[in-house]
Amino acid sequence: MRILILGGDGYLGWPTALHLSRRGHEVVVVDNLVRRDYDSEMGVGSLVPIARIERRVRTWHAVSGLHVELAVGDLTDAAFVLRTIEAYRPDTIVHFAEQRSAPYSMIDREHAVYTQVNNVVGTLNLLYAMAEVDPSIHLVKLGTMGEYGSPNIDIEEGFIEITHRGRTDVLPYPKQPGSFYHLSKVHDSHNIMFACRTWGLRSTDLNQGIVYGQETPETSLHPDLATRFDYDAVFGTVLNRFCVQAVVGHPLTVYGAGGQTRGMLDIRDTLACVELACLNPPEHGEYRVFNQFTESFSVLQLARIVREVYPGPVEIEHIDDPRVEQEEHYYRAAHTKLLDLGLVPHLLDRQAISDLLGVVGRHRRRVDTGAIRPTVQWRRTASTLVTAAPRTPGTSAA
Amino acid sequence: MRILILGGDGYLGWPTALHLSRRGHEVVVVDNLVRRDYDSEMGVGSLVPIARIERRVRTWHAVSGLHVELAVGDLTDAAFVLRTIEAYRPDTIVHFAEQRSAPYSMIDREHAVYTQVNNVVGTLNLLYAMAEVDPSIHLVKLGTMGEYGSPNIDIEEGFIEITHRGRTDVLPYPKQPGSFYHLSKVHDSHNIMFACRTWGLRSTDLNQGIVYGQETPETSLHPDLATRFDYDAVFGTVLNRFCVQAVVGHPLTVYGAGGQTRGMLDIRDTLACVELACLNPPEHGEYRVFNQFTESFSVLQLARIVREVYPGPVEIEHIDDPRVEQEEHYYRAAHTKLLDLGLVPHLLDRQAISDLLGVVGRHRRRVDTGAIRPTVQWRRTASTLVTAAPRTPGTSAA
Repeated sequence: MRILILGGDGYLGWPTALHLSRRGHEVVVVDNLVRRDYDSEMGVGSLVPIARIERRVRTWHAVSGLHVELAVGDLTDAAFVLRTIEAYRPDTIVHFAEQRSAPYSMIDREHAVYTQVNNVVGTLNLLYAMAEVDPSIHLVKLGTMGEYGSPNIDIEEGFIEITHRGRTDVLPYPKQPGSFYHLSKVHDSHNIMFACRTWGLRSTDLNQGIVYGQETPETSLHPDLATRFDYDAVFGTVLNRFCVQAVVGHPLTVYGAGGQTRGMLDIRDTLACVELACLNPPEHGEYRVFNQFTESFSVLQLARIVREVYPGPVEIEHIDDPRVEQEEHYYRAAHTKLLDLGLVPHLLDRQAISDLLGVVGRHRRRVDTGAIRPTVQWRRTASTLVTAAPRTPGTSAA
Repeated sequence: MRILILGGDGYLGWPTALHLSRRGHEVVVVDNLVRRDYDSEMGVGSLVPIARIERRVRTWHAVSGLHVELAVGDLTDAAFVLRTIEAYRPDTIVHFAEQRSAPYSMIDREHAVYTQVNNVVGTLNLLYAMAEVDPSIHLVKLGTMGEYGSPNIDIEEGFIEITHRGRTDVLPYPKQPGSFYHLSKVHDSHNIMFACRTWGLRSTDLNQGIVYGQETPETSLHPDLATRFDYDAVFGTVLNRFCVQAVVGHPLTVYGAGGQTRGMLDIRDTLACVELACLNPPEHGEYRVFNQFTESFSVLQLARIVREVYPGPVEIEHIDDPRVEQEEHYYRAAHTKLLDLGLVPHLLDRQAISDLLGVVGRHRRRVDTGAIRPTVQWRRTASTLVTAAPRTPGTSAA
């Protein structure tokens, strides 16, 4: 199968590219490399050093004998998108290529507009190019469990059967996203659903939970193949952050009561889920949604697990929640479709946490503790960040 | 009450501005005048001649003794939005300022992207400026009944109580919009709901049906005060188009079976509904939705009503539906909230049709019959229009 990995230079895109390459697929990494620019803008870098993309690809070839192609460009450049799809004629396009941080989207107006325009226009350009070049291409799109928010009823996988005043229909599950980033994913979902209905495209929308972990069988083969690991309050996800905090002796920063419950998954399960989606495409014209997570935890539960596993003393500190969200709520979300396709989850056990703590321990000297506490306040329209240099979001330093 | 009318130079914005001015409010018209550029792009103009905006405002003063202020600028220019809200400090902002044609948004990729960026970014800039200047400003936002699509259950006003697996919650009504334009309104709705929850803004989202009519008590006072009347297949709404077709002896073009049922309202009721929303603001932090229409008709019913009322012979022609939509479907939508506030509807009777036919009769020599048949095909990613000159969407000819 020929697969384009859009956003193939990112935290999950890169290990996904390697995984699919090793599984025998022809892989093309497409990326504008902007994630590296966010590092300069935030004034903080990946905990684990990452190689330049050209070196990553060269080393992968040296280590595995396999070729991964590279196309550098931006999805908001419609001509580039069309040219790339025409050039490679993929069977499947895996689309990670979006600004993916909720706090980043909430920094100020510029970052909110950047996030929505970047994500929505990139995906629109992709939908048009697919419809023009080959509507049978399968789009595997990364969405987020955060599209649903935390309703007081069970969350289903994309659609819900509603009986109302004596009539019944299956309708898109109502969305209550909690940041301009999460909103951009909701906008995408609606646009993709429409494109499937109107042009007969087919797509799998992976509503992914929060990913933890850094090592995969492929990225562990050589230091040049490592993927990034973010621990800062803007790009770091919760469990990764807690592990860094434990190792450097910083209190684990739980936002508010910590009852916020979220679906989670191991980075290796992301790879397996994406592959399962690719290998089992939907019908032509079908838009389907898989909830991509394996277990649910509250933030406070996660903090306690890390405290329990970490060999030294760990303090848990409840700080004011910088977000506007429910700190205690009902949460039960379906996630059977990927299991039905054969997913065998890596559950969050002591070993998984120990492995993560090991990664952090090896790079602890690179931790900038000044980047750990949240700086972006949802209730404000503009938050001041300590950054390397004030810049327009998403642009290269050059 | 001081009210900004964003999009106050348009089909509905202008008569709304006059209506609110005559009712004693301080009115400021804000517009980038782009609707006039779409005319050049489409190579077709309003059936009823319209005066330049400066002349409209001058004549209104001469006729009524009342001042309407004018601020020309673009909502995608964040500095302009902030400056304007700071300068006028309105109690209420009525927001018509979006690209509002479904076929226009479906012309090609450029027009789809233009529509979504223009509408979504304009509204985002507005939300940020309101939150920064004064979160108590009431945003009255024009949405569309088309956000809901045509589900097989009753449509409620914005939210629906769902009982699922033994639990109950009130959630946003699921959306199934039918064009990139309608999608842009769904995106707006989600963004506005989030801004109300996060920043304590308050907003009324008016999910409006299809408007017909051209004359209001104020616009009839002088020819310079007339509002535009579109009959072309891109910007003309269905009943207005049918009246033009009857008068010029063109068959009434029913798309497909004609069972597409939609909520409709008289232009004078739009004015009354907007005023009712302004006078009865929601609580701080509240996002509420009113379904703004008075009656439902199928497209075929409308064609038959026009045929019945028009004194000459009228042919009805079923043509291939250029849209992707259900040609027969269940349709029942709640619309009690505005009635509860006191709306007294102008229903679609013979007189209303006769008045409309009268307007068309007086300007029939201005009809370009070449603009009547649909040119934009939903199933294609690009449709060729016969336009005055190929241009970038939404830019001035200058």
